[in-house]
Amino acid sequence: MKIQKVDDLVSIKRSIETGTSEQLSIVKNILSDIRTRGDGALREYTEKFDRVQLASFFVTEEEIAEAYKKVDEGFVAIVREAAENIRSFHEKQLRPSWMTTEENGTILGQKITPLDSVGVYVPGGTAAYPSSVLMNVIPAKVAGVKRIVMVSPPDQEGKLPAAVLVAAKEAGVKEIYKVGGAQAIAALAYGTASITAVDKITGPGNIFVALAKREVFGDVDIDMIAGPSEIAVLADETARAEEIAADLLSQAEHDPRACSVLVTPSQQLADEVSLEVEKQLALLPRKEIAARSIADYGVIYVAENLDQAVETINVLAPEHLEIITENAMELLGKIRHAGAIFIGRYSSEPVGDYFAGPNHVLPTNGTARFSSPLNVDDFQKKSSVIVYSEKALRDNGAKIAAFARMEGLEAHARAVEMRLKN
Amino acid sequence: MKIQKVDDLVSIKRSIETGTSEQLSIVKNILSDIRTRGDGALREYTEKFDRVQLASFFVTEEEIAEAYKKVDEGFVAIVREAAENIRSFHEKQLRPSWMTTEENGTILGQKITPLDSVGVYVPGGTAAYPSSVLMNVIPAKVAGVKRIVMVSPPDQEGKLPAAVLVAAKEAGVKEIYKVGGAQAIAALAYGTASITAVDKITGPGNIFVALAKREVFGDVDIDMIAGPSEIAVLADETARAEEIAADLLSQAEHDPRACSVLVTPSQQLADEVSLEVEKQLALLPRKEIAARSIADYGVIYVAENLDQAVETINVLAPEHLEIITENAMELLGKIRHAGAIFIGRYSSEPVGDYFAGPNHVLPTNGTARFSSPLNVDDFQKKSSVIVYSEKALRDNGAKIAAFARMEGLEAHARAVEMRLKN
Repeated sequence: MKIQKVDDLVSIKRSIETGTSEQLSIVKNILSDIRTRGDGALREYTEKFDRVQLASFFVTEEEIAEAYKKVDEGFVAIVREAAENIRSFHEKQLRPSWMTTEENGTILGQKITPLDSVGVYVPGGTAAYPSSVLMNVIPAKVAGVKRIVMVSPPDQEGKLPAAVLVAAKEAGVKEIYKVGGAQAIAALAYGTASITAVDKITGPGNIFVALAKREVFGDVDIDMIAGPSEIAVLADETARAEEIAADLLSQAEHDPRACSVLVTPSQQLADEVSLEVEKQLALLPRKEIAARSIADYGVIYVAENLDQAVETINVLAPEHLEIITENAMELLGKIRHAGAIFIGRYSSEPVGDYFAGPNHVLPTNGTARFSSPLNVDDFQKKSSVIVYSEKALRDNGAKIAAFARMEGLEAHARAVEMRLKN
Repeated sequence: MKIQKVDDLVSIKRSIETGTSEQLSIVKNILSDIRTRGDGALREYTEKFDRVQLASFFVTEEEIAEAYKKVDEGFVAIVREAAENIRSFHEKQLRPSWMTTEENGTILGQKITPLDSVGVYVPGGTAAYPSSVLMNVIPAKVAGVKRIVMVSPPDQEGKLPAAVLVAAKEAGVKEIYKVGGAQAIAALAYGTASITAVDKITGPGNIFVALAKREVFGDVDIDMIAGPSEIAVLADETARAEEIAADLLSQAEHDPRACSVLVTPSQQLADEVSLEVEKQLALLPRKEIAARSIADYGVIYVAENLDQAVETINVLAPEHLEIITENAMELLGKIRHAGAIFIGRYSSEPVGDYFAGPNHVLPTNGTARFSSPLNVDDFQKKSSVIVYSEKALRDNGAKIAAFARMEGLEAHARAVEMRLKN
């Protein structure tokens, strides 16, 4: 793994896949086709892309019961415990509506309301992760969203992966459809006879899904468009090279475009981790993927001191950050930009990927500068509440009218004054 | 003003102006030009579009002092009081970072951090509203954003409107540049020698500004792309027709594409408001604009009863909602979708546009189904914090490793197990 000094070019930003104009035109056609022809078009695209004819897209209770029979019993128990941890963490994000009252009768407030409905996209094939189902569905459920719809492309037997169905059931999803791709996004955004439209769509997908989400944005809300996963480890000489190497590789095995970075003031740790990465890499089942990721995007940055290392982390704004240093907790206040922060050697990143409770849907590609992990706020919205009494308007009406006139908006001024004269 | 019965076609959604491909290509050229040639290009575009040669874009303390001399003293006092109200309301939106602790040593938390820097775009000409400066800047300031940059296109004398500069100063902006259009958005997103890049850009603008914001989104964050303004009034027979008409017109005078709607179970009120609108319209200075808005987008919906009227409001999901009925407060809990809710006859919408405290930057075009008023959360982000103790990992490590293996991610499992064996 390559080692370099910290310089001005520190970055884990990668070019975001924005799709070709051909891909965009395919997606636009699919969207307009579903919009005009509904289920008929949905059925045709499912036949074309997923190579299966479906009488109904809806996943029945029988199919879910069957899924439970297919998975390991131990797995169900682990999913339940993970779901409970995720639920418990996200419940702490809930906020009440609030109001303030003044003696003149004014009441101001903020009313918090869950979205009516949310659609969760779950990719097919090897990217169908039950953990991702839990992480997308549970915050919506905790937020109070009444209708949560899951969509996922079926295999050629017209089935969804058993583990995904079990995770969906455990998370509380009652409406699952076997549709995928841009056609599923179109159905969620515009609705068809079998699938009623939703207000927001979350969840990862391939480039066609990502393009479709971008296109329907505005008609419905969407979550972020996630880039490849990334980790930055901030460590000093007290850290163990083999553990850091293992964590860097756990990121690298996701995707050849995943990015693993170590920032350390210790040249010795840098050298040791570099060797350890090569050693452990050779023994991994997904070593081809991990090797490409480490070669193309892996870097060990050697900083002059811990302060420079911390500032390097803030420039990187990584999706995942591990801090493995003496007195790691003391550094927390200096970290301004990171999606999730794992502190100490026992807080290996997979702890957060699956189980601890915080969300694993995190801002990538430097967007932790301005974005947050998926959370309950993403499934609620606020409304301002304004109650002015007669006294409040008498006290302030002339000022409000004057401000409006200053902006040349006479009808605004008159609307206020009319109440004062009446 | 036209009157119709509530039916399935109730909607205030309008086609969103998305720009032509020519406009998009102009914007893309400007963005890449500023990115490669920086201030030189910025100067050229300012000469071309704003017809002024500027030695420096930066607004000096002298220019601000001059602005204070130009505006009315009464105006400064009103701006100060409005700013104080806005500050006070938005301070109540602040949330602390939090953590939970468990007996096994686990600490989980959510760390809240302000964005490092924000750029606020203020349109030029007649759309330069000082109230909009307050509404965009103050939430960022309350959130703790250290660097707030304002940009606005200069007039042909190289000046910005005095009222806008005064509002900026009162809101606490220290860095103002005389640049506008797509070139200003490019400078904020990518930086030039004179303007350091920011992390998020907010504020309204013309189609070129809107297109540029869409293009830079991802490199920086942006606020919503706002559509034309809109109001829905929910009223029963206890409301006064002339007051409702005045409020509908105060919305209509903004823009020919603004939308004013009354929903009422009272046919009599509908008839009276329709007449009142025509009467008051004739007397407005901006009557051409208001008349087009009322003709094209104004509707009075007559509902069968109050419940149907409320449900109509939820379908409309209006930017502004006024509730002027008997026991209006009791209806608040039934309103699921509205940007700002004004209750009672003294809570005329201009109260919130300028003065009461809640933000006037609100979700338009039905997006109140899933979006919120501009607020402090828009200028902060969250980071998850995960601290696992040795005991926590010993208790849960095997389950985490099993979950990872179930998803085929062996390196994840090994990263956890390595800590358990060490």
